[in-house]
Amino acid sequence: MSVTAAQGFLACGIAAGIKESGDRDLALVVNRGPSRAAAGVFTSNRVQAAPVRWSRRVLADGRISAVALNSGGANACTGQAGAVDTRLTAERTADAVGVDPHEVAVCSTGLIGVRLPMDRVLAGVAAAGELLSPDGGEDAAVAIRTTDSVHKTAVVTRDGWTVGGMAKGAGMLAPGLATMLVVLTTDADVDAGRLDETLRDATRVTFDRVDSDGCMSTNDTVLLLASGASGLTPAPEAFAEAVHAVCRDLAGQLVADAEGASKEIEVRVVGAASEEDAVEVGRSIARNNLLKCALHGEDPNWGRVLSAIGTTAAVFDPDRLDVAINGVWVCRDGAAGESRDEVDLSDRRITITADLRSGDASAVLWTNDLTAEYVHENSAYSS
Amino acid sequence: MSVTAAQGFLACGIAAGIKESGDRDLALVVNRGPSRAAAGVFTSNRVQAAPVRWSRRVLADGRISAVALNSGGANACTGQAGAVDTRLTAERTADAVGVDPHEVAVCSTGLIGVRLPMDRVLAGVAAAGELLSPDGGEDAAVAIRTTDSVHKTAVVTRDGWTVGGMAKGAGMLAPGLATMLVVLTTDADVDAGRLDETLRDATRVTFDRVDSDGCMSTNDTVLLLASGASGLTPAPEAFAEAVHAVCRDLAGQLVADAEGASKEIEVRVVGAASEEDAVEVGRSIARNNLLKCALHGEDPNWGRVLSAIGTTAAVFDPDRLDVAINGVWVCRDGAAGESRDEVDLSDRRITITADLRSGDASAVLWTNDLTAEYVHENSAYSS
Repeated sequence: MSVTAAQGFLACGIAAGIKESGDRDLALVVNRGPSRAAAGVFTSNRVQAAPVRWSRRVLADGRISAVALNSGGANACTGQAGAVDTRLTAERTADAVGVDPHEVAVCSTGLIGVRLPMDRVLAGVAAAGELLSPDGGEDAAVAIRTTDSVHKTAVVTRDGWTVGGMAKGAGMLAPGLATMLVVLTTDADVDAGRLDETLRDATRVTFDRVDSDGCMSTNDTVLLLASGASGLTPAPEAFAEAVHAVCRDLAGQLVADAEGASKEIEVRVVGAASEEDAVEVGRSIARNNLLKCALHGEDPNWGRVLSAIGTTAAVFDPDRLDVAINGVWVCRDGAAGESRDEVDLSDRRITITADLRSGDASAVLWTNDLTAEYVHENSAYSS
Repeated sequence: MSVTAAQGFLACGIAAGIKESGDRDLALVVNRGPSRAAAGVFTSNRVQAAPVRWSRRVLADGRISAVALNSGGANACTGQAGAVDTRLTAERTADAVGVDPHEVAVCSTGLIGVRLPMDRVLAGVAAAGELLSPDGGEDAAVAIRTTDSVHKTAVVTRDGWTVGGMAKGAGMLAPGLATMLVVLTTDADVDAGRLDETLRDATRVTFDRVDSDGCMSTNDTVLLLASGASGLTPAPEAFAEAVHAVCRDLAGQLVADAEGASKEIEVRVVGAASEEDAVEVGRSIARNNLLKCALHGEDPNWGRVLSAIGTTAAVFDPDRLDVAINGVWVCRDGAAGESRDEVDLSDRRITITADLRSGDASAVLWTNDLTAEYVHENSAYSS
């Protein structure tokens, strides 16, 4: 059901010829209201694609009436010409669906540094405007795929209102195609301020903690659009819970679909002096290539976990670090603990727990192993 | 010639049975003086192996009379027992060569989290003490190898004095065996304060800028020992130049021997507002897995360079970034420049130049590509 699970939204996904493969590559999502409240979070990369710069400005007044998304080209590092391309896309979308162009967000994903085939994009937008449907969410989710092996959607329904969404991204492992794009919709009646707060809280502990290969895209975008069509305004806690659930679900699908990966790794840092410490340590573990190789080889190499922790500025005593792999405390007090032989790493899912024994804060991050397939997918094709 | 190229030094390298392979695994380097001035730099990882902790204390008074080095075990994350093992190694070395144990540095490399076979280490040290020779430098260099495919030595001779040395390390790409160990010797008569200053200046722009896979060892150690046996005290600039040359030579050998690598990549950052900015940007480029995969595939993917620069806090304008790959300016003003097709990446050596156009500072870093062989070497063996 994707972005059209919530009332008040139309969507479609078509093949506009942007991708040479002929696969679907252009999607529209339209909010028919009555509300057009919206919020967004964007990549913190300082090199930002033209559509990111545009959509940030669109969101300045907290309203989005439509989103145009394309795969097959990131429109990043394309200079002033790329900025014009994004503006034209928004204007054509506005024409096609009858809204103000300054209420049209644009998302692009694909190769960096290459102009989009604008004739196809603009013709595609016009054609897509004719195909909008309250059942178009799945097609839209398919159209934003790049190297994703499956399209990704999630929906939760509560007492009379719904939050749904779609995501693309292969665990941020893809080539120039690394981008994560997410569009969430709800028919709850929630103002832009609360949407913003709710989305930031949810992404901070979901999408922001997926760190498949440490490479941050120029195009990452997460949007949340509210139509208010249910006529209901949920309690803030209930709404936050629903948005978090959808984000968590989609984030898990990203990790599960990471390119070339054979393991899904959950890194749990506990006993930290602060959540910042826990995240810093978790990220250092999640990004350690040597550890990721070891886990690929099903080797419970806890020394690499300690070595990764040691590179951080977090509060800890090296002689009081405990590490468990799949529940076996292979490291106690910074030295060998229970036998490595007790660790079974044959399953696709692996959990690493690092106890800093310095406080009560914690954080969970998700990553993947490092495989020859990852190298192949990111080196064998010119991209 | 290695560590015995300079007058006043004896060395040897033997097979003590620490490695199951039966290869050489234990080395001694002895300074016969008249001076015993010394300096050292160590890993900045906060999880530090017992020999690193010990050798730091030894250097507190700027004197080293002997160094005992072993491969086949890092003695890291081994708790109080590991600390005792290092002390016993120093004491046995002191007995064998007739010096104070508090003037004996210890270096270990190999698996993390495993105790050394101390009976073999101690018997080996005693045996090695009988085999010390002014020609033993090569054997010592061989004995400290782990996954190194070749042993690594360098020597420069100036007007009556010499700086030489040995290194082990496979570009910091190795498994639990990631450590870089370096011992430099000179027969120049230079006091400990100047040795320290010279060594820090040299390592800062050589070994510290080799960043093969971003993984920092628990055991990295670089020592510089001066015997004064030449009776000469060089001008500070001349001495600094010689130490830098040896460090640069050895650092280059580390990158060239990086495990699984097929490319040696020099990252030159110019036009930076400060050297710190240049190093931050260079490190971000050098650590970007997607870029390292692309270069492995001989794909001049400058978008990944920009994406890596964008994750830093350095001073730059995203729309004024220039990037050259092997001299072809494929990115100008943050967008496509000269044709990618002009870039020839078939050679083993690749140079990436990033011009931040924000000042006059610069830095050079060295890294490798990311290959399926790297993954294999770091995942296929339990380590």
